[in-house]
Amino acid sequence: MEPLCYLNGKIIPLTDARIGILDLGVLRGFGVYDGLTSFSGDPFRFDDHWERFQTSANSLGLVIPHTKEEVRSAMRAIIAHNAPGKRANLRMVLTGGTAEKGIEHVLGRETLFITAEAAVPLPAALYERGGSLIRHEHQRFMPEIKTTNYLTAVMLQKKRADAVANEILYTSGNRVLECATSNVCIVKNGVIATPDADILKGITRKVILELASGAYPIQERVILIGELLAADEVFITGSFKDILPIVSVEGKTIGSGVPGPVTRDLTKRFETYARQAS
Amino acid sequence: MEPLCYLNGKIIPLTDARIGILDLGVLRGFGVYDGLTSFSGDPFRFDDHWERFQTSANSLGLVIPHTKEEVRSAMRAIIAHNAPGKRANLRMVLTGGTAEKGIEHVLGRETLFITAEAAVPLPAALYERGGSLIRHEHQRFMPEIKTTNYLTAVMLQKKRADAVANEILYTSGNRVLECATSNVCIVKNGVIATPDADILKGITRKVILELASGAYPIQERVILIGELLAADEVFITGSFKDILPIVSVEGKTIGSGVPGPVTRDLTKRFETYARQAS
Repeated sequence: MEPLCYLNGKIIPLTDARIGILDLGVLRGFGVYDGLTSFSGDPFRFDDHWERFQTSANSLGLVIPHTKEEVRSAMRAIIAHNAPGKRANLRMVLTGGTAEKGIEHVLGRETLFITAEAAVPLPAALYERGGSLIRHEHQRFMPEIKTTNYLTAVMLQKKRADAVANEILYTSGNRVLECATSNVCIVKNGVIATPDADILKGITRKVILELASGAYPIQERVILIGELLAADEVFITGSFKDILPIVSVEGKTIGSGVPGPVTRDLTKRFETYARQAS
Repeated sequence: MEPLCYLNGKIIPLTDARIGILDLGVLRGFGVYDGLTSFSGDPFRFDDHWERFQTSANSLGLVIPHTKEEVRSAMRAIIAHNAPGKRANLRMVLTGGTAEKGIEHVLGRETLFITAEAAVPLPAALYERGGSLIRHEHQRFMPEIKTTNYLTAVMLQKKRADAVANEILYTSGNRVLECATSNVCIVKNGVIATPDADILKGITRKVILELASGAYPIQERVILIGELLAADEVFITGSFKDILPIVSVEGKTIGSGVPGPVTRDLTKRFETYARQAS
């Protein structure tokens, strides 16, 4: 069965979904991105993703050429076709469309597309025993905005795979920032702490902080690398991986080397919430 | 007459030249770029551009899927068709091709395309009276590499146009770096000086320094903003604009406010050289 996607207002076969080579998205890397998940046919926390996507678009002077309801309906339709009854991952991209004079964006030419595919989750055993990070000194350009600029992330995938690591932790000086495609949290003495600046604030991060609120003290603040390495627990959050416990960073063991009680509790809370929200 | 382009080894109509939406070039902004000009059918200083393009590709772990001679022949063919007997501008892009798992580059999937169009030069009067720059605090990511990451440059085009300026000067702290799509040189007391680090070293910049060599003292070094504003002459260089005299930066007049003798001499030398090289 041929997968479908959404391109500029139409649902079409993915193999037919192509954009012109003069599109600013490819010629000049000028676009914004969002990744969403769906537990049972509906995009999870769609309102939050839409708001963030709009903010990203506005920052670049891009206008989304379709309404929120059109986009949500398109997502439901392509999920129903591509991954019926399954968990699905969605990617949404808005670019400047065909370049004027090779570099100028003309309002109204924007390209919008959405893909959906059955999720291929990380192995269950990885969630049980915990994953690992490699570290890279890097702060994303316009970090609060989710642009399509993932140069560093793409370049480091081989290094990550060679290290048999699950994510790349970006640090700046002695500060912990975020991972290439997820956020990071630490737990120390029962307190959850996570960076608050120079990062892309993920939707899963937001949900976890909501679910933790009241049950645990939460600190959104600068996190030093030393704190992360000395934490009782570390976990990362993202739409395509939920909560992944981290037990090793650059070869150094975190806490007792197994997923800790706070991470496990938050995972249960998230699973319950996701089931109810679906 | 329908323009042609080159895409993955084939010369095809530009309107048919499309890439898949899962190409890393659009999904993740993962690609490298080069811009070339042709005075009479052959790409100018092709060897230099090819070497730079290869260096850029290598830096990202990309492999150019066609040989130097194939690419040069393709350029000649599309110039001959799209802009016969005219000056032409070429753009060449290499991307990671179809993403694996949404973010991984797989060797051998690279996308390569080349466009050519009749050049639409800046007005002759602008070269006679001199142009202007606006300033923006920015250092390009991996500045020695010509990636497709032109987010800042695209975003600032409207501001540039509103200011009736010709280019955007990037500065970092009190250092002059480069312009969005060109290099910058200053002239003081007959000495030509140009930044040597944290910039993309343009091919036109290289040619100008060759042509100036022996005739003028040349300094490749850190240039402070104060030096630029106090210079006798300022000019910018690029494949699509050759040498453009600059007589105003952020509203401040440079030198006597008209193109100076060194800039005019280098322009003549460049025109002679370009005629001979064609």
